[in-house]
Amino acid sequence: MSMMTHADVANAMQPEDTPALKALYEGFAAEHLMPLWTQLDDLMPVHPAPRAVPHVWKWQKLLPLAEESGRLVPVGRGGERRALGLANPGLGGRPYVSPTLWAAIQYLGPRETAPEHRHAQNAFRFVIEGEGVWTVVDGDPVRMSRGDFLLTPGWCFHGHHNDTDQPMAWIDGLDIPFSYQNDVGFFEFGSERVTDYATPRFSRGERLWAHPGLRPLSGLKETVSSPIGAYRWEHTDRALAEQLLLEEEGQPATVEQGHAAVRYVNPTNGGDVLPTMRAEFHRLRAGTVTPTRREVGSTVFQVFDGRGGAVIGGQEHALEVGDLFVVPSWVPWSLWAEGQFDLFRFSDAPIMERLAFARTAVEQVDR
Amino acid sequence: MSMMTHADVANAMQPEDTPALKALYEGFAAEHLMPLWTQLDDLMPVHPAPRAVPHVWKWQKLLPLAEESGRLVPVGRGGERRALGLANPGLGGRPYVSPTLWAAIQYLGPRETAPEHRHAQNAFRFVIEGEGVWTVVDGDPVRMSRGDFLLTPGWCFHGHHNDTDQPMAWIDGLDIPFSYQNDVGFFEFGSERVTDYATPRFSRGERLWAHPGLRPLSGLKETVSSPIGAYRWEHTDRALAEQLLLEEEGQPATVEQGHAAVRYVNPTNGGDVLPTMRAEFHRLRAGTVTPTRREVGSTVFQVFDGRGGAVIGGQEHALEVGDLFVVPSWVPWSLWAEGQFDLFRFSDAPIMERLAFARTAVEQVDR
Amino acid sequence: MSMMTHADVANAMQPEDTPALKALYEGFAAEHLMPLWTQLDDLMPVHPAPRAVPHVWKWQKLLPLAEESGRLVPVGRGGERRALGLANPGLGGRPYVSPTLWAAIQYLGPRETAPEHRHAQNAFRFVIEGEGVWTVVDGDPVRMSRGDFLLTPGWCFHGHHNDTDQPMAWIDGLDIPFSYQNDVGFFEFGSERVTDYATPRFSRGERLWAHPGLRPLSGLKETVSSPIGAYRWEHTDRALAEQLLLEEEGQPATVEQGHAAVRYVNPTNGGDVLPTMRAEFHRLRAGTVTPTRREVGSTVFQVFDGRGGAVIGGQEHALEVGDLFVVPSWVPWSLWAEGQFDLFRFSDAPIMERLAFARTAVEQVDR
Amino acid sequence: MSMMTHADVANAMQPEDTPALKALYEGFAAEHLMPLWTQLDDLMPVHPAPRAVPHVWKWQKLLPLAEESGRLVPVGRGGERRALGLANPGLGGRPYVSPTLWAAIQYLGPRETAPEHRHAQNAFRFVIEGEGVWTVVDGDPVRMSRGDFLLTPGWCFHGHHNDTDQPMAWIDGLDIPFSYQNDVGFFEFGSERVTDYATPRFSRGERLWAHPGLRPLSGLKETVSSPIGAYRWEHTDRALAEQLLLEEEGQPATVEQGHAAVRYVNPTNGGDVLPTMRAEFHRLRAGTVTPTRREVGSTVFQVFDGRGGAVIGGQEHALEVGDLFVVPSWVPWSLWAEGQFDLFRFSDAPIMERLAFARTAVEQVDR
Repeated sequence: MSMMTHADVANAMQPEDTPALKALYEGFAAEHLMPLWTQLDDLMPVHPAPRAVPHVWKWQKLLPLAEESGRLVPVGRGGERRALGLANPGLGGRPYVSPTLWAAIQYLGPRETAPEHRHAQNAFRFVIEGEGVWTVVDGDPVRMSRGDFLLTPGWCFHGHHNDTDQPMAWIDGLDIPFSYQNDVGFFEFGSERVTDYATPRFSRGERLWAHPGLRPLSGLKETVSSPIGAYRWEHTDRALAEQLLLEEEGQPATVEQGHAAVRYVNPTNGGDVLPTMRAEFHRLRAGTVTPTRREVGSTVFQVFDGRGGAVIGGQEHALEVGDLFVVPSWVPWSLWAEGQFDLFRFSDAPIMERLAFARTAVEQVDR
Repeated sequence: MSMMTHADVANAMQPEDTPALKALYEGFAAEHLMPLWTQLDDLMPVHPAPRAVPHVWKWQKLLPLAEESGRLVPVGRGGERRALGLANPGLGGRPYVSPTLWAAIQYLGPRETAPEHRHAQNAFRFVIEGEGVWTVVDGDPVRMSRGDFLLTPGWCFHGHHNDTDQPMAWIDGLDIPFSYQNDVGFFEFGSERVTDYATPRFSRGERLWAHPGLRPLSGLKETVSSPIGAYRWEHTDRALAEQLLLEEEGQPATVEQGHAAVRYVNPTNGGDVLPTMRAEFHRLRAGTVTPTRREVGSTVFQVFDGRGGAVIGGQEHALEVGDLFVVPSWVPWSLWAEGQFDLFRFSDAPIMERLAFARTAVEQVDR
Repeated sequence: MSMMTHADVANAMQPEDTPALKALYEGFAAEHLMPLWTQLDDLMPVHPAPRAVPHVWKWQKLLPLAEESGRLVPVGRGGERRALGLANPGLGGRPYVSPTLWAAIQYLGPRETAPEHRHAQNAFRFVIEGEGVWTVVDGDPVRMSRGDFLLTPGWCFHGHHNDTDQPMAWIDGLDIPFSYQNDVGFFEFGSERVTDYATPRFSRGERLWAHPGLRPLSGLKETVSSPIGAYRWEHTDRALAEQLLLEEEGQPATVEQGHAAVRYVNPTNGGDVLPTMRAEFHRLRAGTVTPTRREVGSTVFQVFDGRGGAVIGGQEHALEVGDLFVVPSWVPWSLWAEGQFDLFRFSDAPIMERLAFARTAVEQVDR
Repeated sequence: MSMMTHADVANAMQPEDTPALKALYEGFAAEHLMPLWTQLDDLMPVHPAPRAVPHVWKWQKLLPLAEESGRLVPVGRGGERRALGLANPGLGGRPYVSPTLWAAIQYLGPRETAPEHRHAQNAFRFVIEGEGVWTVVDGDPVRMSRGDFLLTPGWCFHGHHNDTDQPMAWIDGLDIPFSYQNDVGFFEFGSERVTDYATPRFSRGERLWAHPGLRPLSGLKETVSSPIGAYRWEHTDRALAEQLLLEEEGQPATVEQGHAAVRYVNPTNGGDVLPTMRAEFHRLRAGTVTPTRREVGSTVFQVFDGRGGAVIGGQEHALEVGDLFVVPSWVPWSLWAEGQFDLFRFSDAPIMERLAFARTAVEQVDR
């Protein structure tokens, strides 16, 4: 019984096409009604049947386009950000990498400023290469450097400025599609210049909060999003390296053999950094192949370092540094590593878990 | 600053329309990229700008169409349910009452059975009139009678059968649009007949759980959805009547003067009955006018009894028993009562609250 | 290794009794120090070794003493309550039924008033027989009748008055020993007369809150203690009866065969009614013998109706209506029923669970 | 009314001393009953009236006694630990620093081993000076060095060994009095030698968990106690220094002017490291005087560095490095710093908060 799909069943409810039925259907239309029985297959599939498709964006294609944007398009008030959104080929021309997630490459030229604003949408940045930009979040300047993961929780004012004579590019992740679809967005313009051009090594949020296992007594309330504005590469790298060392010592530490991973978390409750988005960093030892997983919800990876590839929906993709790919809901995926292989990952998993839609299937693969 | 809208700002980022720009934009298209600066106004509005519109469906129009469906369309496997989905006129022909919610009138003729199936989508039913149908949820037959609120949490098998010689209609609420949009749905066919044709006065879920302030020791785990399958009108009516009596005695009991309301809750945690949908019942004393509210998220009301109306987005609507209306996100609404006015309400508030997008604005009105 | 007890080990740390050692021990005393090595066996036993002992108090002895107190001891300001605390024979003359719990029989003569006061200690009452007293909790008069369970959460003002020409007795449960031991108590005198002599059938708390699965919109915040002031016998009795009927129908409903039980809960979160005390009601079908349980924490039972007995710490006790008995921590206990056997139960389980000390062992017994 | 104390009220319930009363009281005694009216003042004081008293233990007295114990008392199976418990002078000769807390100085000679065992009681260690001992917790060797805070959660096997030719002393904190009083303790002997004599710089728990804002994917479950076995001085010191620097920059960071503080937390949920005990580190800038606080629950401080003092219950105490003092429940206390003043603090606050007994009063003082 449980294996029966929509395609297997005779549809008892497709009535004879009579004038009476035609009149009925016209009556539905006039009263803004639609019958379930004509659309059940589409509306309620046997398992998630995403319109979004798996897709790989090559960094070597993205970066030159971002650079050319830097030459042709000024940054400033109104457009706000020189950001190129990844548009999933299955989503009909919307700038959505998945139904819930926005992913973009953002580019800031030498000495440029992206003006301040705030919005209900949650945002983060991840830096694949470069340095020299500070993002100023609610007045707190946050250095952006290679390997760093940076937060802009919903409704925090923020702008960016490039303190150097070199351009810099990074990726942004937001819940724009989810917010747009569900009508939850608010937006407010702030200052055209950032409110603080200081370039400290560490933000105030880090100085207060980024001490392992310690919490300031001035910050005892649980917050919706993490108070740590910057998760530094140095810590991420060390945590992953330790997991692999512990594994070598025979200790339980990794997700599975050869596969180390950390989740970025909110220190006030141990949960995800943002209410709608999860962020993780994965490191595969050379030669590792992960089991094939299916998950409810969509996820995006970016290769940070090393060599390897992914099988997504049965199709193999070789991957290089900077490449981004999306795995839509319930599409099977696995990773393989030629050399040590480092990937940043983000997803809409908090939405799925908080609303009790999360499901996972894992199967071991031979390769 | 905070009052500035997109319309007020010169858009510094609309570059000159040169061949180079054209080539850049073609490059974007080829690589499945879309610039943010051309679409910010649409994607990130100053406040929620729903495509969904306020709309009223008149019961006197719906019911005859449901009855005619009963005559023309057999119920059965494949189509599964003789349900007419309310299609918001702003949502382009999708059977969605809002971006997150499905609302339908369902109709079952004398002695008919709607076959069993289950789905990840959460569902409830509310009965505006009639009786005689039992919905069988995971094998537990649940009587459906006027004023009852009935649950079918995600992934529970369920079918319905009409034990009488009279037809019966009721409304269904589901999170189909949300599930469809975010690719979280699973569906499985079950038995073509319901698994138990017994017609007990109370379901097993009620017998175990519907005792005020008492919890069976055999059920100490918190559950995602409420274990109470049926919330009976008798209890709802009494709770509302007591609130108005307490108010008359000068005690705090109502939401505001003349406005009693209860929320249906999960007794294992005191929270919403389903992870994605909230359900409430509101009673206004004759002459009451509620303050005007705006809320993030969408909500649907159905008039259960009495006379009154609603102002939605500035427009007045007189309402009769059975009428349904939807209030999209952030659209202002208020209710007024001519006589005692009873309304069932459901919404996507759990989604908004669990993902930290909830906001409310209330302003007192004179009328 | 795990079976080794203190008695099995040679104590390597009992040093030679020399003048130097004597001087050392005198040095300890002078500086308010005590060595662990001389007292480990007592301080850290292999399993809980309560000073409290199992004990049964016979209602037929308690009630005449309460009645004689009514004749000889006036009730009023200062002493506050005509209450007789059960003093565990193992606890050296303190009025503690266990190290955490106070249990007392309280007696109020015709037309008497026990004055209002409040304290941080949490309290409840359970009525084994009689009616006619109202307890007024934060100004809300609460009828007390046979089988009712009534709450006075910490820091609520409360007094009692007897509206009839008959005396009435009931039992009180408080966390007085825990509060005393840990220095958490506050106490404040209130009015000498109760603030409201009305005798309504239902308290305001019940009228707002005691509707199954419904929550007033005026009460959406989680509260530390239950807002329901009275849990009526009618509901308790019906819930237990339904469990036994469901069991007869082959449905999972009871704790174990022939053993129905409900927990009184806080409807705002589904948890215990008070932060320190759990209350339950148990009903055994005639002939039922429960498995033998050991639990960390202490518990008190009172027979409400029927015939049966208990084996506590290996010793059998026949029990009659009104009899109270205590089971100290980790002492094995089981119940048996001759006829249908109804027992009220309370314990310090919330303390054990919230502080992660809870453990349970269950073993099936033949009898 | 609220200011009235027990002493102010005539006790209406002290009945005439007649033969009948004497017989009644003898009846109570025979039936293991005690009247409330004769003991209310003691049992339910107007505010906490601890038997425990404020007391200071001088490190310069403790350490020599510990050293002498090292000479006279061998460490080993049976006595288990060479630990000297601080015995509050008000608690009648029990080795309790407060009704809930145990604090001891523990001493391990060169090359000695304290054998492995485990107990339900929760434990931590704090190192005021020295290094060279490893505590092995569930097989994970944890280096103990100056300024480190180290955990042994309930029911983890643990032993210690001194890897050097120097003795080492530190303090232990446990919930022994609470566990003893409430009969929650279990104890089991383990290996007589520690199971791993390795002396790694960092424990496995730290290597997995002590990365700020990062959580291993292999450890996604919330745990009752912190999985970080060692909180290193380097991090604590830096966190405190940053708070004072941020304060100088005009940023909110400290508890109050001149008073920096961190709480040690469980990274799986942001809460206290142990279910019964809170641990913090406080740093006062030279010249700072804290407001006077009263808190429900008891707390112990140890001076780690610097010069200053405390006013406890109105009495001034000058304090030096290593000195320990206890503040019983509701006793007012404040600290003052001559130079920079560093203090380790622990308390039973999780008990008070989880059971809803917590209260705090703060008043500003002039000095």
